[in-house]
Amino acid sequence: MPSPYISIHHDRGEDEVAVEEPLEIRVDRRPLAVTMRTPGHDEELALGFLYGEGLIREVRKAGLTEDFAANTIEVEGPLERDPGERRFYTTSSCGVCGKGALDEIAVYSAPLTDGPVVARSLLVRLPDLLEQPAFERTGGLHATGLFEATGRLLVAREDIGRHNAMDKVIGRALLDGLVPLGERILCVSGRLSFELVQKAAVAGAPILVGVGAPSSLAISLAAERGITLCGFTRRGSTNVYAHPERVG
Amino acid sequence: MPSPYISIHHDRGEDEVAVEEPLEIRVDRRPLAVTMRTPGHDEELALGFLYGEGLIREVRKAGLTEDFAANTIEVEGPLERDPGERRFYTTSSCGVCGKGALDEIAVYSAPLTDGPVVARSLLVRLPDLLEQPAFERTGGLHATGLFEATGRLLVAREDIGRHNAMDKVIGRALLDGLVPLGERILCVSGRLSFELVQKAAVAGAPILVGVGAPSSLAISLAAERGITLCGFTRRGSTNVYAHPERVG
Repeated sequence: MPSPYISIHHDRGEDEVAVEEPLEIRVDRRPLAVTMRTPGHDEELALGFLYGEGLIREVRKAGLTEDFAANTIEVEGPLERDPGERRFYTTSSCGVCGKGALDEIAVYSAPLTDGPVVARSLLVRLPDLLEQPAFERTGGLHATGLFEATGRLLVAREDIGRHNAMDKVIGRALLDGLVPLGERILCVSGRLSFELVQKAAVAGAPILVGVGAPSSLAISLAAERGITLCGFTRRGSTNVYAHPERVG
Repeated sequence: MPSPYISIHHDRGEDEVAVEEPLEIRVDRRPLAVTMRTPGHDEELALGFLYGEGLIREVRKAGLTEDFAANTIEVEGPLERDPGERRFYTTSSCGVCGKGALDEIAVYSAPLTDGPVVARSLLVRLPDLLEQPAFERTGGLHATGLFEATGRLLVAREDIGRHNAMDKVIGRALLDGLVPLGERILCVSGRLSFELVQKAAVAGAPILVGVGAPSSLAISLAAERGITLCGFTRRGSTNVYAHPERVG
């Protein structure tokens, strides 16, 4: 596994900085997407990305190619639908790429009606339970964690892109047979955008917790898809912006 | 000008949250890009985006259409180069969308060799001089400011997407005849990614200051393009990761 950070000299000393490199995702040798990501867990990233876009519904064979400095990953097709002539392009913080019109931005998923009821006192602790070793060294990474409703951390991933961190977690969950996520909770280290709510919805996560602020569209999408959305989850407090019925 | 934030009820009171909505950018009625952005200054956003992608070299006529809830902007062509069958898709934090292969990510710009020498004591003050009224209300926006080398703020823009905030500032500078930016300084409220350095390079900004952490690729691109890159600019301190010769 490549290190997520490297040492860099600056004019007053030395720092560890987060690694950012492009990854090209190919399906059946056809380029589909380029994302700026932190190397490592690239199979999870590719599978999580394709799942969130509604392009696959189960695990596919995927692996880095040896050329291109390990910055190309091949995924076995076929896809669930034809992405058409479009390719998907994402950066370190882009997640709804590849849509050509406003009404194409949304990836459909059925509204969630089940899911656990979780104590507020547990929800507010999740950011502290989210392991972020590379962020602690660099200050330059986002994190996503997948938790059981009991608060047990199942998997955490860090990446320079907030949506990549979530794609990696969902890709891991897919490989482990945990999708749809059912009774489990996703927690992110930063802000809550439309794209993160959409990825959580497609993966079937009933509760999404964020340390940072939600956007207007994140809140309305969470309300529509049946997701409990908790923002500003810090210092023992959280605000519930949608579906508070799961907060006990 | 639409408000960048709206009031939202949550389970324990009321908050102001940043508005996030899609904007479709069309050139000569052809859809080119969708970006998730905070409404307002959309002409600047479209022009700054197209300039940063190397698709225009001067101001074009641009305006919101009245349909689609003012979420479509028409820009007059022709473009400097054919974007081909590809469209560009960006989100609230995406800036290198629309590139189909690793070697297509970079937008070329000549390395900068001029630019002012600025005292470190001035550079470390820029984040405090960067006006962020909507962030102060919501906690959910990024900001970019364009400064004279004297520290005078020329323009500041906030957006839910870090790259949009910079696109808006560069679009404004383009409208005001200030591009290439020459002796001026760009300052961003967050982290320093590859895409932000690239936009600064294409606009000809010799110094880029960020409050947050730089990525590995941001540092190497800044070194290559002749940009002075200052990260972790906070609490009276900054680290210079590339071209420290402009820091006096």
